[in-house]
Amino acid sequence: MTSLADLPIRDDLRGLTPYGAPQKSVRIALNVNENTHPIPEAVAQSIVEALAAAILQVNRYPDREFVILRDSLANYLGHGLTRDNVWAANGSNEVLQQILQAFGGPGRTVLGFPPTYSMHSIIASGTGTRWVEGTRDDEYRISPETAVRWVTETSPDVIFFCSPNNPTGTPLSLETIAAAYDATDGMVVVDEAYAEFAQDGLPTALSLLAGRERLIVSRTMSKAFAFAGARVGYMASHPSVTDAMRLVRLPYHLSALTQAAAVAALAHTPEMLAMVDDIRTQRDRLLVELPKLGYTVHDSASNFVLFGGVSDPHALFERLLEDDIIIRDLSIEGHLRVTAGTEAETTAFLDALGRIAR
Amino acid sequence: MTSLADLPIRDDLRGLTPYGAPQKSVRIALNVNENTHPIPEAVAQSIVEALAAAILQVNRYPDREFVILRDSLANYLGHGLTRDNVWAANGSNEVLQQILQAFGGPGRTVLGFPPTYSMHSIIASGTGTRWVEGTRDDEYRISPETAVRWVTETSPDVIFFCSPNNPTGTPLSLETIAAAYDATDGMVVVDEAYAEFAQDGLPTALSLLAGRERLIVSRTMSKAFAFAGARVGYMASHPSVTDAMRLVRLPYHLSALTQAAAVAALAHTPEMLAMVDDIRTQRDRLLVELPKLGYTVHDSASNFVLFGGVSDPHALFERLLEDDIIIRDLSIEGHLRVTAGTEAETTAFLDALGRIAR
Repeated sequence: MTSLADLPIRDDLRGLTPYGAPQKSVRIALNVNENTHPIPEAVAQSIVEALAAAILQVNRYPDREFVILRDSLANYLGHGLTRDNVWAANGSNEVLQQILQAFGGPGRTVLGFPPTYSMHSIIASGTGTRWVEGTRDDEYRISPETAVRWVTETSPDVIFFCSPNNPTGTPLSLETIAAAYDATDGMVVVDEAYAEFAQDGLPTALSLLAGRERLIVSRTMSKAFAFAGARVGYMASHPSVTDAMRLVRLPYHLSALTQAAAVAALAHTPEMLAMVDDIRTQRDRLLVELPKLGYTVHDSASNFVLFGGVSDPHALFERLLEDDIIIRDLSIEGHLRVTAGTEAETTAFLDALGRIAR
Repeated sequence: MTSLADLPIRDDLRGLTPYGAPQKSVRIALNVNENTHPIPEAVAQSIVEALAAAILQVNRYPDREFVILRDSLANYLGHGLTRDNVWAANGSNEVLQQILQAFGGPGRTVLGFPPTYSMHSIIASGTGTRWVEGTRDDEYRISPETAVRWVTETSPDVIFFCSPNNPTGTPLSLETIAAAYDATDGMVVVDEAYAEFAQDGLPTALSLLAGRERLIVSRTMSKAFAFAGARVGYMASHPSVTDAMRLVRLPYHLSALTQAAAVAALAHTPEMLAMVDDIRTQRDRLLVELPKLGYTVHDSASNFVLFGGVSDPHALFERLLEDDIIIRDLSIEGHLRVTAGTEAETTAFLDALGRIAR
């Protein structure tokens, strides 16, 4: 019987297993930081109308430059950005992959700071870019000095920050990003997938873009816009960085349906972001309630909370699964991560945890 | 003013320009081998209903294994294939990219036979795979002996065939594919993007899959299914090859909208393929009528015709553009390529050509 090992696959892939959280059918899924709110019905209606129009021309290739989508994204981001500053792909994973295809790759390195989004090192590996690991300070923070020290010591071609960081929720200061930028001649990428969930007043790295042509801020519609299923990631940068993306993207990489659905959703930004406020409330509730149940929590500016003081994470994960609740075990000692769901889902999770603790 | 040249882009990308045919708004577009027939209204209605259902859960990540789509594609392909034999991605370009990520890459080579689909060498370059060029026999054919000679001389890790070949339309015999397979320990890929347009009785490489675990047949819904805008490419192979794809794909690479739209279209296969018969009729008409206008034609099993005897291809291209008709100049000396459109489009093209010739 032929198996993968019998095929002439690349040596660096031999023995690997595919990335991905378990796909289980569970009543309350708080494991992959989805926005658990379905999109509002009126918005869904608008999106379907846009898709119905797009289907009539689906026999033609889509706009390779997705101009209307870039206009919509630039308008959403503000900060004086225009379509020339914006690029998009099938999920921010593909955006990051294209960045490493252009600026990383064989013979080049990317510096990251684990624990962080696990796809960062996987995308590095997939593009032949060497993944170099820096360390974090207390409470998973990265001070400007720590960042500069790692940049100076490792001279990376690309730096990946994640702000707020996944899976820890930790925000990153603009001072750290600016200091790292000044210390490198390479590209600096700030993955802001969860930026919309930050507390009021926390600034975004978008405010650093002016005058920094090697800075890239990546975003996604998966979380704040409840669009994980539609796969729309994007980035903002100097226009010349988007020109680099055009050299490595596959032509027509964004389907006409993706473009139409995203444009329609962005036209309903206020309704979509109303869900974000609800989720921030539940995130703050987790930060208050988990300590009452005897767990430690880490500061979170995202839609999830990493909590510690778990004597046996695997056992607790399995126990919650018995209650039809799935959260995430990321193999961080004594810790588990939970997504802030709807009020009802968050209540169900906290109640289950309370019963188990007793 | 910062430009791309000022950024720390990879050396092998410096000075390149992005791939892609000109995106012009022209009344009769016969330049990129699209299916110029909009999908039938009843089918569009079914697709919109499927999308409307998918939108309700778009806040969740899509099925990472796109099981229902793989079932639908296997059912469409026949030949005893099941979901375990099938893989899909955002266009066959992404399928081919994943194949080279798994089986090509730095230090490896892929053998192709130009003139052929220009993305083949671009995807090789994008994945760091060295592109090695074989030559063709008369009339762009590849005999088993020619294939084996090139395989033996160059020892490639991957072989890319294109059948029928783009941009020449040339069919490829199963004998050539089988002989190349036997002569290599590497992977053999047959790009059958245009297979549905082949003359009745021309076999597909799908019939060679049994017992050949290093053979991959790639397909697309862009052409026969009039789905270029939806970006659905796929492949059939031994199940272990799909396991290799799982190691290099980005997780959730196929959106829930893509999956829903493709499944709905495949449920209407007879209606969708009815358009293919019309297009084949127009292709055959081009093969008959172009010689009457003084041009030479090359045998075509696809939805386009490469015609020669053009004294100044660029001038003829521009002259047709003045009549609001765009075809494709692929820099093959004395040649242009035209897509078989609807009956009216084909008539308009032939009439314009007749007027110009006079």
